[in-house]
Amino acid sequence: MHSTLRITARDNPAVKHYRRLRDNKRARREERLFVAEGLRIVCDALQYPGLVQQVFVTDTAAERTGALPEFRKADACLRISDAVGESMTDTYHTQGIFAVCRMPAQLPPAALLRQDGRYLVLCDLQDPGNMGMILRTADALGMDAVFSAGSCEMYSPKVVRAAMGSLLRVSVCETSPLPLAALLHQRQICSYAAVPAKDAQPLNECSFDGGCAVWIGNEGNGLPDELIAACGQTVTIPMRGGPESLNAAMAAGILMWEMTRGRKGGAHGT
Amino acid sequence: MHSTLRITARDNPAVKHYRRLRDNKRARREERLFVAEGLRIVCDALQYPGLVQQVFVTDTAAERTGALPEFRKADACLRISDAVGESMTDTYHTQGIFAVCRMPAQLPPAALLRQDGRYLVLCDLQDPGNMGMILRTADALGMDAVFSAGSCEMYSPKVVRAAMGSLLRVSVCETSPLPLAALLHQRQICSYAAVPAKDAQPLNECSFDGGCAVWIGNEGNGLPDELIAACGQTVTIPMRGGPESLNAAMAAGILMWEMTRGRKGGAHGT
Repeated sequence: MHSTLRITARDNPAVKHYRRLRDNKRARREERLFVAEGLRIVCDALQYPGLVQQVFVTDTAAERTGALPEFRKADACLRISDAVGESMTDTYHTQGIFAVCRMPAQLPPAALLRQDGRYLVLCDLQDPGNMGMILRTADALGMDAVFSAGSCEMYSPKVVRAAMGSLLRVSVCETSPLPLAALLHQRQICSYAAVPAKDAQPLNECSFDGGCAVWIGNEGNGLPDELIAACGQTVTIPMRGGPESLNAAMAAGILMWEMTRGRKGGAHGT
Repeated sequence: MHSTLRITARDNPAVKHYRRLRDNKRARREERLFVAEGLRIVCDALQYPGLVQQVFVTDTAAERTGALPEFRKADACLRISDAVGESMTDTYHTQGIFAVCRMPAQLPPAALLRQDGRYLVLCDLQDPGNMGMILRTADALGMDAVFSAGSCEMYSPKVVRAAMGSLLRVSVCETSPLPLAALLHQRQICSYAAVPAKDAQPLNECSFDGGCAVWIGNEGNGLPDELIAACGQTVTIPMRGGPESLNAAMAAGILMWEMTRGRKGGAHGT
């Protein structure tokens, strides 16, 4: 630890700052900072130079993990009492390791697009667990970027946890949907609206040869008509069984798999 | 309501019985009963003759929904006070509608197999949310059966809720893995072990033409070596990005999509 400060007061300014960032979306947005909790995600974050502002480690966690050399990569590493850790945690059984991280600078959509890219556009997706699982899958399958319009905040603690580090690796961009649709069209990247309609193109008959973007709507309401129209093309996952729809993250995962399945150059995993 | 009984005591035997079935796996297994909560799932269950033993409706829910004619399909429909409903709920905001349901008779694995069937085998899968999402996806994609070996209980309240009615439609079977592997082999249904190994066959190069079964292992540990050997073939989802693995339900969903994508005769949905 390159700081010998040990914090034992729950109302210490650094601890209060952490909790404010944990609980307050507006604070995150204004300061462009977010919080992460857990050994794995904090160590992942520390691989990115300049990303981690502060690491907090409880006494118990420090005994368990030792003074990890990775922690020196943060601007500051602060020892905290277990009681202070309990005031910071967002889980039932905390690992006692926390970080305040800087949001990466967001590139404009135009800078993220390339001719043969594969893109996902999430419109009004509200469940943080779905968002996190989608980001993890996008990362695994090598999507070129994930755009979000009016969806739940990507840097909320729940999304950060569910994405398991993928939020740091995938290019993400919060944007407005109609200008994005126009930009994709201008760049000749095909937009497909994912819909449950019987007259949409079945996913297994789509060929995603060139650049393409699949648009996914809200868990309950799907995509609004004006966005379906703006996409120009529709795609649907053929359903043979009983439920009216798949879980939104599952639908996104299957669509991303199909968009990327023919691409070269992957490692392998389950 | 074809019973005029209104229950106001939390220790009423029928209410205590519901809670015991909700909380106690052994009670569920011995009585071959499980519980379901929520208007949608209870109405789904009532479509199956003889499935629902009892429906419980709180005063508030009865006012909100009226006396639904579906409720007459249960053996008994009991009105309960809101306070009794609070003692039964497993959620933060209960809809006030509960059912005790009979587990469908389980067919032996041999009776579920057909030559060109598509099967999923879940070994030691422990997360009820994953199990529920897998059952919902298996239902949507038209899998012929889902086998489970040593996994979390399929009729636990968490799985029932996450599966959203699909548990009632998909053929599910709890079994032992090695005899199942032998039976599949004997019936000439190819078994593929889903593994993160680089030397496994990439999913996009697999052809699932005839009958086939994909085996998926524990969220953390994957499949044990003896089961991988028993399967004979391995399959992997090629990964291009950062995480070491996909979420188990997501991996299962992509594998099921690939197993079923060429089949005829589906309706359409997202």
